[in-house]
Amino acid sequence: MSTAQPASPTRDTASATHGASSPRAAIEAANARVMSAFRAGDAAALAACYTPDAQLLPANSEAVSGSDAIQRFWSGAIAAGIADARLETAEVEAQGPLAVEVGRYTLAGADGGTLDQGKYVVAWHRDDAGAWRLHRDIWTTNRPAPGT
Amino acid sequence: MSTAQPASPTRDTASATHGASSPRAAIEAANARVMSAFRAGDAAALAACYTPDAQLLPANSEAVSGSDAIQRFWSGAIAAGIADARLETAEVEAQGPLAVEVGRYTLAGADGGTLDQGKYVVAWHRDDAGAWRLHRDIWTTNRPAPGT
Repeated sequence: MSTAQPASPTRDTASATHGASSPRAAIEAANARVMSAFRAGDAAALAACYTPDAQLLPANSEAVSGSDAIQRFWSGAIAAGIADARLETAEVEAQGPLAVEVGRYTLAGADGGTLDQGKYVVAWHRDDAGAWRLHRDIWTTNRPAPGT
Repeated sequence: MSTAQPASPTRDTASATHGASSPRAAIEAANARVMSAFRAGDAAALAACYTPDAQLLPANSEAVSGSDAIQRFWSGAIAAGIADARLETAEVEAQGPLAVEVGRYTLAGADGGTLDQGKYVVAWHRDDAGAWRLHRDIWTTNRPAPGT
């Protein structure tokens, strides 16, 4: 598609095998590192998946800005019982060093029980060395609002 | 910055005047149309601000996909009492026809009282005619979770 329409963002929703150089493959590999860090309970490793000036934009909170605050946020989530995060990429649109990923997440506790599930949008940056990092990270639960 | 680092996304966080051709200026103009449509209670005009295959990713819901569903969603929000939406762009990063906007929103009722406030990420697409439309739209409230 990017060959036929060079002015359009690269849209990559296929589930087929991707070359190592495709943004989707690189972002899925980065998400694998995020998931490993969650399973290891390693908030520092999680924070290292983000750009230094990244932001989380969680519900019921102001934005969480920068590596230290992001590490504290995920450390708190791990302490609160999140033992596993599954991230499933639905689509990646990339233009040069900027990519937008939409996906689905499932958070589980140590006993494997689902704590939350929903969807997310992540703006990724590719640095000069070719590494992709999360830059803006926002997600919303699919669960009904409490009390509804 | 885009002149000095052509490989980096165009980052445009300045509040100074922007030329008509800058992605930020175009996106702020598009947001002005979104705000006008809200104040007019015109869900069809709101839906027209989105790409035909756009998605909303609201909390407490599955994704809302496509113009008809988006129109119904905003029609429901207007019927529920949202009379005014204020959108304030915090940053725009653009690469060709793809842009990521981060901003703050405030929703108000007919009496001007604030119903909700929070933050959002929108992935925008520029079409072949140069018009920017919302393609992926996700937001989270800054308010505490109910019951906390």
